[in-house]
Amino acid sequence: MQVLRYREGAYHEEEISVESISSRTSFNEDYDVTWIRVTGLGDTALLEQLGEKFHIHMLALEGIVNTMQRPKFEDYGAYFFVVLKSIHSWEQEENIPISQVSMLVGEKIVITFEEKEEFFFHAVWERVVSNKGLIRKKKADFLAYSLVDAIVDSYFSVLEKLGEELEQLEERLIYDPDKEAIHAIHRMKRQMLQLRRALWPLREVIGNMERGVTSLIHSTTTVYLRDVYDHVIDMLDVIENYREMLSGMLDIYLSSVSNRMNEIMKVLTVISTIFIPLTFITSLYGMNFIFMPELKYQWAYPAVLGVMLLISLAMILFFWRKKWL
Amino acid sequence: MQVLRYREGAYHEEEISVESISSRTSFNEDYDVTWIRVTGLGDTALLEQLGEKFHIHMLALEGIVNTMQRPKFEDYGAYFFVVLKSIHSWEQEENIPISQVSMLVGEKIVITFEEKEEFFFHAVWERVVSNKGLIRKKKADFLAYSLVDAIVDSYFSVLEKLGEELEQLEERLIYDPDKEAIHAIHRMKRQMLQLRRALWPLREVIGNMERGVTSLIHSTTTVYLRDVYDHVIDMLDVIENYREMLSGMLDIYLSSVSNRMNEIMKVLTVISTIFIPLTFITSLYGMNFIFMPELKYQWAYPAVLGVMLLISLAMILFFWRKKWL
Amino acid sequence: MQVLRYREGAYHEEEISVESISSRTSFNEDYDVTWIRVTGLGDTALLEQLGEKFHIHMLALEGIVNTMQRPKFEDYGAYFFVVLKSIHSWEQEENIPISQVSMLVGEKIVITFEEKEEFFFHAVWERVVSNKGLIRKKKADFLAYSLVDAIVDSYFSVLEKLGEELEQLEERLIYDPDKEAIHAIHRMKRQMLQLRRALWPLREVIGNMERGVTSLIHSTTTVYLRDVYDHVIDMLDVIENYREMLSGMLDIYLSSVSNRMNEIMKVLTVISTIFIPLTFITSLYGMNFIFMPELKYQWAYPAVLGVMLLISLAMILFFWRKKWL
Amino acid sequence: MQVLRYREGAYHEEEISVESISSRTSFNEDYDVTWIRVTGLGDTALLEQLGEKFHIHMLALEGIVNTMQRPKFEDYGAYFFVVLKSIHSWEQEENIPISQVSMLVGEKIVITFEEKEEFFFHAVWERVVSNKGLIRKKKADFLAYSLVDAIVDSYFSVLEKLGEELEQLEERLIYDPDKEAIHAIHRMKRQMLQLRRALWPLREVIGNMERGVTSLIHSTTTVYLRDVYDHVIDMLDVIENYREMLSGMLDIYLSSVSNRMNEIMKVLTVISTIFIPLTFITSLYGMNFIFMPELKYQWAYPAVLGVMLLISLAMILFFWRKKWL
Amino acid sequence: MQVLRYREGAYHEEEISVESISSRTSFNEDYDVTWIRVTGLGDTALLEQLGEKFHIHMLALEGIVNTMQRPKFEDYGAYFFVVLKSIHSWEQEENIPISQVSMLVGEKIVITFEEKEEFFFHAVWERVVSNKGLIRKKKADFLAYSLVDAIVDSYFSVLEKLGEELEQLEERLIYDPDKEAIHAIHRMKRQMLQLRRALWPLREVIGNMERGVTSLIHSTTTVYLRDVYDHVIDMLDVIENYREMLSGMLDIYLSSVSNRMNEIMKVLTVISTIFIPLTFITSLYGMNFIFMPELKYQWAYPAVLGVMLLISLAMILFFWRKKWL
Ligand SMILES: [Mg+2]
Ligand SMILES: [Mg+2]
Ligand SMILES: [Mg+2]
Ligand SMILES: [Mg+2]
Ligand SMILES: [Mg+2]
Ligand SMILES: [Mg+2]
Ligand SMILES: [Mg+2]
Ligand SMILES: [Mg+2]
Ligand SMILES: [Mg+2]
Ligand SMILES: [Mg+2]
Ligand SMILES: [Mg+2]
Ligand SMILES: [Mg+2]
Ligand SMILES: [Mg+2]
Ligand SMILES: [Mg+2]
Ligand SMILES: [Mg+2]
Ligand SMILES: [Mg+2]
Ligand SMILES: [Mg+2]
Ligand SMILES: [Mg+2]
Ligand SMILES: [Mg+2]
Ligand SMILES: [Mg+2]
Ligand SMILES: [Mg+2]
Ligand SMILES: [Mg+2]
Ligand SMILES: [Mg+2]
Ligand SMILES: [Mg+2]
Ligand SMILES: [Mg+2]
Ligand SMILES: [Mg+2]
Ligand SMILES: [Mg+2]
Ligand SMILES: [Mg+2]
Ligand SMILES: [Mg+2]
Ligand SMILES: [Mg+2]
Repeated sequence: MQVLRYREGAYHEEEISVESISSRTSFNEDYDVTWIRVTGLGDTALLEQLGEKFHIHMLALEGIVNTMQRPKFEDYGAYFFVVLKSIHSWEQEENIPISQVSMLVGEKIVITFEEKEEFFFHAVWERVVSNKGLIRKKKADFLAYSLVDAIVDSYFSVLEKLGEELEQLEERLIYDPDKEAIHAIHRMKRQMLQLRRALWPLREVIGNMERGVTSLIHSTTTVYLRDVYDHVIDMLDVIENYREMLSGMLDIYLSSVSNRMNEIMKVLTVISTIFIPLTFITSLYGMNFIFMPELKYQWAYPAVLGVMLLISLAMILFFWRKKWL
Repeated sequence: MQVLRYREGAYHEEEISVESISSRTSFNEDYDVTWIRVTGLGDTALLEQLGEKFHIHMLALEGIVNTMQRPKFEDYGAYFFVVLKSIHSWEQEENIPISQVSMLVGEKIVITFEEKEEFFFHAVWERVVSNKGLIRKKKADFLAYSLVDAIVDSYFSVLEKLGEELEQLEERLIYDPDKEAIHAIHRMKRQMLQLRRALWPLREVIGNMERGVTSLIHSTTTVYLRDVYDHVIDMLDVIENYREMLSGMLDIYLSSVSNRMNEIMKVLTVISTIFIPLTFITSLYGMNFIFMPELKYQWAYPAVLGVMLLISLAMILFFWRKKWL
Repeated sequence: MQVLRYREGAYHEEEISVESISSRTSFNEDYDVTWIRVTGLGDTALLEQLGEKFHIHMLALEGIVNTMQRPKFEDYGAYFFVVLKSIHSWEQEENIPISQVSMLVGEKIVITFEEKEEFFFHAVWERVVSNKGLIRKKKADFLAYSLVDAIVDSYFSVLEKLGEELEQLEERLIYDPDKEAIHAIHRMKRQMLQLRRALWPLREVIGNMERGVTSLIHSTTTVYLRDVYDHVIDMLDVIENYREMLSGMLDIYLSSVSNRMNEIMKVLTVISTIFIPLTFITSLYGMNFIFMPELKYQWAYPAVLGVMLLISLAMILFFWRKKWL
Repeated sequence: MQVLRYREGAYHEEEISVESISSRTSFNEDYDVTWIRVTGLGDTALLEQLGEKFHIHMLALEGIVNTMQRPKFEDYGAYFFVVLKSIHSWEQEENIPISQVSMLVGEKIVITFEEKEEFFFHAVWERVVSNKGLIRKKKADFLAYSLVDAIVDSYFSVLEKLGEELEQLEERLIYDPDKEAIHAIHRMKRQMLQLRRALWPLREVIGNMERGVTSLIHSTTTVYLRDVYDHVIDMLDVIENYREMLSGMLDIYLSSVSNRMNEIMKVLTVISTIFIPLTFITSLYGMNFIFMPELKYQWAYPAVLGVMLLISLAMILFFWRKKWL
Repeated sequence: MQVLRYREGAYHEEEISVESISSRTSFNEDYDVTWIRVTGLGDTALLEQLGEKFHIHMLALEGIVNTMQRPKFEDYGAYFFVVLKSIHSWEQEENIPISQVSMLVGEKIVITFEEKEEFFFHAVWERVVSNKGLIRKKKADFLAYSLVDAIVDSYFSVLEKLGEELEQLEERLIYDPDKEAIHAIHRMKRQMLQLRRALWPLREVIGNMERGVTSLIHSTTTVYLRDVYDHVIDMLDVIENYREMLSGMLDIYLSSVSNRMNEIMKVLTVISTIFIPLTFITSLYGMNFIFMPELKYQWAYPAVLGVMLLISLAMILFFWRKKWL
């Protein structure tokens, strides 16, 4: 459990053990904001200690541990509780690894609970320590905004990566559609589904923070939350767009499979249809009847060859007209 | 008809017969909450007795027996009436067995009507008896919440089971798509439909309980109902997700069927197209014309064999270029 | 034109001719409710007489005759006007026979206009005459509710009938999908469409009656209308469910057609691919070249037979591996 | 530019030239309503003169001429502006000819601008002149209603015509599905799209007129507008229904194409599979090997014929069992 | 950075360098409106200078540079900020080139930021300079309207161009459907998606400007914005229509591919089915059995020819009846 306390002029970093939580009388002392950062959700004792110390509602504590839920916002009066989903380092695997980040925001305190260590949070921590931007001049609500913003920004890079993959996939589909392509389309469709599920409820979450449901968010922070909100909407729009593109690509793939089938059938039909009648003729004169007068004529063989040539040409002309050749 | 009465310090369990209902003057005596549990809906006399005793509206009584309706909430002033759907033990059968649970909630009383015995209710009964958690400290509205919560929680395990089956089905689809797969996809689609039908109206039901439509729900219980509400939303989201995954799997199946057809056609076409012209040539020299000078040349046979070899190679090259081989 | 007047203690049945309408000064006399029942919409004179007598708005009169409209509710102040659709005896024909019932409801009067005679209305009439249930104790608004309820209830039996047909169709699809099945699916889809069109606007109609748009509905009747409303919603839900099941069945049918095509192609391909090369070989040794040394070897024939056997076995192994056999 | 002025007791018809517009001081004189009817939108001078005379907003004038817009309602205070789409004589062509009608409605004046001459308007004009119905007793708002009603009514006949065509198409599809059918389905789908585009915004337009957005509509006219509104809704419902039927027909067509393909393949497969092995056998005994002992047995030929018969029967039995025959 | 200042009687054009911005004390002097036009978004120094000079919020400055966002409207009190998408010269390429235009509108000032030079803005500039229309008589809000209007109008020509292409594509599809057609359909579908993404959020943007969210828009400008709003709605309707037409065209294409496959299969089946049995017969009498009495009959050959003729005719009749010929 790492603790960072700061006001405009000063800051204090500390590592606190579970045992020492209850013995502490005050957390804020003479700082404006206290950020308590808990990494990993396995330490039940720690959660219980924190719950008692800060009077956290049992249901909120349950929400921190239950990673099967959608992002949500809950107002408990003295503090509000936010559940978010973040994206982690990800290398072309089947599913995008999504983990959960919960946040309790009070007037002077922000407690974050990370399922896996969030690297985007290190950057925020660094910004406080090095006093970059507005963060040290602002209160706990601005820290909460900065953390939400860090998570939302991390989706952009994933979307860009998927966008590039989409374009490559599209080119591959036009020049060389194969069985792999359809699996890639479906994998990307699922990834879009994953992203949409993680982002869609964020609209409501950030909307609730921004719309003044809670009095803990100052009006000056509202415009910043609105900006994050717009980013979420922009990304949802991009996802919707990618999804429609993937549907279009599926259609192209299926119609190219149909076209190839057509081509195969044409070749089979042309070859069969030309040679089957010819083979019938040759087979006819391969019969062993004793009384077959044609067999004895000297010009019969070249005549039959000529007839077969004519039939072939007629067939080819027929296929030419049907545009099968 | 089992009756459980309790207050913070005490409880009383009792089995009451139909006949004795009307003779009873009071049910609550000196307890805070009375829970009457009716199992099975066949006993019309019992329902009528209860209806008279507790002034239950005729339409509510009808609603208890009619198992063809959707979950709903109805406010009758002195009490409110809730219809829910629960899931029972279920072993890979075609349809998920869904049964109905109705609940009448008054200020000091909760009457439950179970189509089939609900095992989840035993756990709640046990919690009252053994005074676990908050339930004994709270009133009838909290008991009602606990019962709704027990039912909603039972859906989670079903969803998990279906989720695992879905993953197995997905793997099977990629490595060995057969006729059974499509029936499995459609069975799961129907099961999702069943679950969604049972859960979707719960949003409104719990929403009505929580939003203070009735004054029988105390404001402290609201936050617990909100939590159940969120669970329902989370599950609906998972169901929607599974449905989209099943649609994607149907697409994969159909495109794999197309691909296999293509492969079959390719084999047929390659073999036919190579041998049909060759067979024509052999058939040509099987004709019995007397004047066929080629037949008498000593090198004619090997020459024809050579020509046929060349034709085969040309064909194979052609198919190679078309990527049919 | 049949007229039924009643109060809690008495009732009066009467058949009134068109001519006598205008000469009557009062219809209610000392009864609480007057129900005028008009069967068939062809008698323009009657409609005009009624329109004048009861000051019915021209547009309402038009609405009674025009059977091409959707169910609707219209408030004219002194009375309200309701258009409904009812279902008639129906024997597996293509379309469900739907006819129109209009209703004018004033403070003490209900006038019904039936396109075809409604048998469900006889039951309500009977209930008034024999004083069953609450109907004689209540006013005109309760009669209106009873009539709407009678119509809505008649949809249930149709839905059950269609539900059974659906299950039979589903079984037939799995065990023996044929051309008829697809026509049955499409017929049922259209019937669902018909039912939905008749029921969907009822939500709004009953909603308007219940929500107190008109002061002619007493608050005690509201709970009964709410019950009918819920029945409509339940049925719409069932219809939606049936529609999704029909879509699923269409998918199963189409994929079974694809599968059968695959099977047909496999048989053709296996037989062709085995015999085409063999026939080539036999055809080869059917050529009449003079210099074909193989023809003279004594072991040539069994050798060729052996080679052909080997080729067949290789082919069969190949198909076995591809799972085409 | 034709002008019709009327009050309950009198009317006055007049043809006014562009030049004389500006010199006129009053249009209403001692009449209640003035209807100015402009046919054709090409006369810019006329539009400008009218714009100046009646203080029409520049944007409304632009709206009259721009025929690429959707139906709309605009309130300019002293008058309101309505754009509608009407349907013209139409004979089985590809697209339904839709033209634009704009209407400016003031307290005592209605100015209509018709892209093409509207024959439905002649009937309204005639009704004023011959004093039929309520129109002469009412004011300008009722004239506006009557004109909107005339346009909406003209859609009914188009819908009926399309409905009949749809039924014919449906029968043709079941008994003889051909290439033309699919083009007919798609033509009708487009026509439905056209109709829906013209009608859909009418809901809002008439809704605005009726809901008292403008004070120029008297409350007694509202009920008439509500009736037109319901007609529009009824027609949209019919269109939606037709669209779903067309989708169903497309599905039937496509599945019948699949079925025919299946049938073709079955014939090919049955014939090929029976004769290919037989031909192999005959070809076998057509080989010219010197040492083929079978050839010399007297019973060999009938034996081979018998074997071939048995193979054929086995094949036929196989196909019979597979239901391919 | 070009600056244009004007009032009804005068105007002043100026080119201002980045350096001189901060030294200027006033921008409006004795003019009513100042339009500052910034072309290209690369000059960070310029943006910072402007931001400081006019107290532009950091988030608005970020919004100007970030071209990955959707059109939006933001109210900052003393000014409002609008992001739009414009379309540039475009010659049948894959994607429609869309660039971003941002606009800051204060009481007396409009600052525009163009990603690429907007030629539509030159026309507005020209209108101010040459005092055409109302623009010089109005304030900054009317200039803002004129710029939005110029951008929206530019979409019309793109839609017309795409409409014409659509019609050509449709004709091509009916008379000669080929592989290119499907790529053209998909290209157009994507272009429609692009246009819809650029236009859809404009509804909200212009709606916000018009609905008086900001007090900077005078009520007289509202009616003009409403007109632009309607144009956007009209275009979205056209796009929706084109999208449904493209879907219909995709269906036509796919069904024509199916039909062609059917035709190919029919030819193959007819030819194969006629000749395969005939070839069997010829092959039969090509066998070399010594005891084949038929071979010696004088009429055997013509008899076999006759039988084969009969079989052919029977086959042709069969195909004729099945409508395969
Ligand atoms: Mg969702
Ligand atoms: Mg949605
Ligand atoms: Mg959007
Ligand atoms: Mg969106
Ligand atoms: Mg979305
Ligand atoms: Mg959307
Ligand atoms: Mg959607
Ligand atoms: Mg739903
Ligand atoms: Mg949902
Ligand atoms: Mg949701
Ligand atoms: Mg959902
Ligand atoms: Mg959704
Ligand atoms: Mg609907
Ligand atoms: Mg539903
Ligand atoms: Mg529903
Ligand atoms: Mg529904
Ligand atoms: Mg529905
Ligand atoms: Mg639904
Ligand atoms: Mg629409
Ligand atoms: Mg509908
Ligand atoms: Mg509707
Ligand atoms: Mg509709
Ligand atoms: Mg619609
Ligand atoms: Mg609909
Ligand atoms: Mg969108
Ligand atoms: Mg949309
Ligand atoms: Mg739209
Ligand atoms: Mg539309
Ligand atoms: Mg629209
Ligand atoms: Mg739309």
